[in-house]
Amino acid sequence: MAATWIQKIPARSVHLFARGRNHAAARSLGSQSPAAAAAPAFPGPGVHSSAASPPSLLRVPSPSPSPTSRAVSGLAKERMMMSENGAPPRAKVLTMDTMNPTVKKVEYAVRGPIVQRAVQIEKELSEGVKKPFAEVIKANIGDAHAMGQQPITFFRQVLALCSYPELMNDNAFPEDAKSRARRILQSCGGSSMGSYSASQGMDCVLQDVARYIERRDGGVPCDPDNVFLTTGASDGIVTMLKLLVCGEDVGRSGVMISIPQYPLYSAALAELGAVQINYYLNEEKNWSLDISELQRALEEARQYCTPRALCIINPGNPTGQVQSRECIEEVIRFAAEERLFLLADEVYQDNVYGEGCQFHSFKKVLFEMGPEYSDTVELVSFHSTSKCYMGECGFRGGYMEIINMDAEVKAQLTKLVSVRLCPPVPGQALMDLVVNSPQPGEPSYSNFNKERTATLSALAEKAKLTEQILNTVPGLSCNPVQGAMYSFPRISIPDKAIQEAAAHGQVPDMFYCMRMLEETGICLVPGSGFGQKDGTYHFRMTILPPKDKLKVLLNKVKEFHQKFTQQYS
Amino acid sequence: MAATWIQKIPARSVHLFARGRNHAAARSLGSQSPAAAAAPAFPGPGVHSSAASPPSLLRVPSPSPSPTSRAVSGLAKERMMMSENGAPPRAKVLTMDTMNPTVKKVEYAVRGPIVQRAVQIEKELSEGVKKPFAEVIKANIGDAHAMGQQPITFFRQVLALCSYPELMNDNAFPEDAKSRARRILQSCGGSSMGSYSASQGMDCVLQDVARYIERRDGGVPCDPDNVFLTTGASDGIVTMLKLLVCGEDVGRSGVMISIPQYPLYSAALAELGAVQINYYLNEEKNWSLDISELQRALEEARQYCTPRALCIINPGNPTGQVQSRECIEEVIRFAAEERLFLLADEVYQDNVYGEGCQFHSFKKVLFEMGPEYSDTVELVSFHSTSKCYMGECGFRGGYMEIINMDAEVKAQLTKLVSVRLCPPVPGQALMDLVVNSPQPGEPSYSNFNKERTATLSALAEKAKLTEQILNTVPGLSCNPVQGAMYSFPRISIPDKAIQEAAAHGQVPDMFYCMRMLEETGICLVPGSGFGQKDGTYHFRMTILPPKDKLKVLLNKVKEFHQKFTQQYS
Repeated sequence: MAATWIQKIPARSVHLFARGRNHAAARSLGSQSPAAAAAPAFPGPGVHSSAASPPSLLRVPSPSPSPTSRAVSGLAKERMMMSENGAPPRAKVLTMDTMNPTVKKVEYAVRGPIVQRAVQIEKELSEGVKKPFAEVIKANIGDAHAMGQQPITFFRQVLALCSYPELMNDNAFPEDAKSRARRILQSCGGSSMGSYSASQGMDCVLQDVARYIERRDGGVPCDPDNVFLTTGASDGIVTMLKLLVCGEDVGRSGVMISIPQYPLYSAALAELGAVQINYYLNEEKNWSLDISELQRALEEARQYCTPRALCIINPGNPTGQVQSRECIEEVIRFAAEERLFLLADEVYQDNVYGEGCQFHSFKKVLFEMGPEYSDTVELVSFHSTSKCYMGECGFRGGYMEIINMDAEVKAQLTKLVSVRLCPPVPGQALMDLVVNSPQPGEPSYSNFNKERTATLSALAEKAKLTEQILNTVPGLSCNPVQGAMYSFPRISIPDKAIQEAAAHGQVPDMFYCMRMLEETGICLVPGSGFGQKDGTYHFRMTILPPKDKLKVLLNKVKEFHQKFTQQYS
Repeated sequence: MAATWIQKIPARSVHLFARGRNHAAARSLGSQSPAAAAAPAFPGPGVHSSAASPPSLLRVPSPSPSPTSRAVSGLAKERMMMSENGAPPRAKVLTMDTMNPTVKKVEYAVRGPIVQRAVQIEKELSEGVKKPFAEVIKANIGDAHAMGQQPITFFRQVLALCSYPELMNDNAFPEDAKSRARRILQSCGGSSMGSYSASQGMDCVLQDVARYIERRDGGVPCDPDNVFLTTGASDGIVTMLKLLVCGEDVGRSGVMISIPQYPLYSAALAELGAVQINYYLNEEKNWSLDISELQRALEEARQYCTPRALCIINPGNPTGQVQSRECIEEVIRFAAEERLFLLADEVYQDNVYGEGCQFHSFKKVLFEMGPEYSDTVELVSFHSTSKCYMGECGFRGGYMEIINMDAEVKAQLTKLVSVRLCPPVPGQALMDLVVNSPQPGEPSYSNFNKERTATLSALAEKAKLTEQILNTVPGLSCNPVQGAMYSFPRISIPDKAIQEAAAHGQVPDMFYCMRMLEETGICLVPGSGFGQKDGTYHFRMTILPPKDKLKVLLNKVKEFHQKFTQQYS
């Protein structure tokens, strides 16, 4: 039964409803007016059909609701369709007009339209459609194992032991793997990973994380009670932002994020109805962070919101810079002076390749600055099992450490995380192994160390290679990839291409990346998905493919760029 | 260095700030005024200290910000403390006054204060503190493995194989376990569970879920594209509520939930700023759902909000009833007439014990009602790996199926779930095994079936036992536990006890359960955590402990209740 749309009927008018016996499921209208998008509407209280009523029925809104819902129903626009027999059926309850408007504002480029198109192309290839390439290469996301990186044997042995403890009797498993598994299982209810853990995380993992942080930070103390295990770092970041920001009804909170940024931040802030305060990294100085720019952004933002927090990603995503100790100190001083809660996204802490570069944790620097800062500055640091040499994204493991958080607020945080019961226990177990990895003298140490070093050296080599090849291309310029897993080169896009992009309703770098995907099968993320200075264009590309494949990839990018530039010159 | 609080300084006054060289980390004040709780405050834009300034510094708020932030700073109450040298240091950025007010409103009884106290008592016991009991028994949460239920061998074998594929060469693993593992790994990027999956879930799992639903529902078709894998059912429920409700700024959305309810619903609605519309289950008629009560609740709610959705938990949590087919049909008709989106929480679909009871999925009933309903009523159904015979809570596996969702809204849902990247892959793998379990003829079938049946029969037996023993206690009355994993008996609390509870600032059933915990070590959840009719009291208790232990537990509850009643008579 085909359905035809009739009209959007004006708000607050009498609504006609009736149900045909056979009508197709409602489909949405293709577009909506900007007004409707800005001020989404609800169906009014009286807008419903009645099963007990005859097929064609005139319904008047039911008697006066409250002023609030009256105002709301005043905005209502109903989508209706007519079944073949001409009787308009029930409209959908949940439509673009009635859904939560903050969700509509969310954008997440790393898995956005270009990735959806890449998945489509893969399907087309598998169905035998001819393309100028044999496979899609997804260099859009830091997904190491998908790019062929092998998991650390020791980690997987322990996970297998924890999953199926019968294997404890298997001599093929080394003793240190078994002792780790035993320790984890003892911390599980009923000795099973199938039990819920405490909402903050399993005790033994919290302790191991705390000891890891202490070793990492040269002895700065860490209280396990300040550690919260998370479902990947994303979960922790969203949880902290949720605590920090208040909805529009009580004045808008602002959160400072770097531009370019990792789009989880903008997505979470959009969903929470908070203000995103952009501060720009300095591309000319290798994506460094200037305090004067923080100051500028903050002062502007104070005109229209209440800044609450400052987010830093170090090593940088998507920009690959590694912050100096001095810069971190300045940022901490700035946060203290300006009364901002610091969020340090440190998930790439082992991914440092640049000569003379070193990872400095915000916490260590904070404590080295003395009690004037270490007793007062509120900080949270995030880590994860997904990056570094592990690349175990699928397990969704992570932790956050909170420093100087108000005790009552911490109780609220504990309550909040209890609603989602607990982070996945296998991810917690994996996080435990990362912070309690094999030590010299243990049977698995040598192999663990070999695997770890091999992965990190390969990444360092690929970081260098990426920078080198991209910088041979006229019209591309790439800062050194000092850390993390991405290059974020700047691209020149000819004016003609910019015009053609506009004709396609696309921003120029989306147009560029879409063209690259269609012509080469390479899937990158346009810089616009991360934010960039007006008039500049970039893409993010991971350095994760195996070296030989990466070379091919980079050379294809080079060829594409030359062809593209020629075509539009 | 000790710190002493000085005062809460009045809003919009001049703020004094200075930094001593050594002051203790700020601690929170014990309480706050109701006004501050209702209208939380921000620090005003000028309220910050400066590192460049001398130790004692008078600061006046900086020049006029926007009207919004001015109004906000007008509410500000600063918490300050003074260091020993008398110089007040920086106040905290994030306090009870400045934090997100919606988070403060969240409550989650299943892991609330009584469980926190239980954890404390466990610690005390382990430190040798003498108690009138030797262990804490947590009957507060449906955590099967923690209560000794064994995982299904086949599931864990496959998970071990997926974690450590070296085991594919191990002859101890049956061939069907290996073929399941191979299929799952083929669906993973780089054949590793460490890769991100598609945000909606791994293809092969979506397909298997769809086939499972079709088998379950007697052939009603299921499109894998309508299935979304989730991080436990909770994640799916929160995601759907997020789509459905709109914040206070655009008029308040209402969602109907049963009372008693599972407190995830109230917690999620509080956080989203939506209105919780209570409809009461009929305890006298075995917690049945009366349409007239739905109608009453809806009509009342329409006075002050826009009802959008109706949530049903079947089999019931915490109430253990199983809905009849007729009742489900009536609910669907009601939702259609009243234009409500239906959320069916069906995570206990295999936990049905009551004589003559049967699980009917909302989807099957909907499709049996004919296209008038099946083409239009918007429905989402949730399932999980955590309950039924699996009890694999720690893996956080789950799925939801959406029916008749507007295509554009579905695209928004897909976008929204992409922000959290993907549900944990081990949980996805486990969900796959649940919906694609060993079949007759396969090597693992007989053992799988034996384990599954044993668990479900034991639960059925324990459901009966619970009802029987509790009903022998004067002052306790327990409806039949027809399904799910909980009894929810009504308890008589003597007036004197109600008065003493009030003197302790506790609701009567919290007082009762706390007393039980302190005296017997049994941890239950007070009925007030789920909601109940005014003047009635209940507790929720799982039926999960092993039979012998459950008997002891029930008899302890009986003894406690008798003693408690005597004491306060």
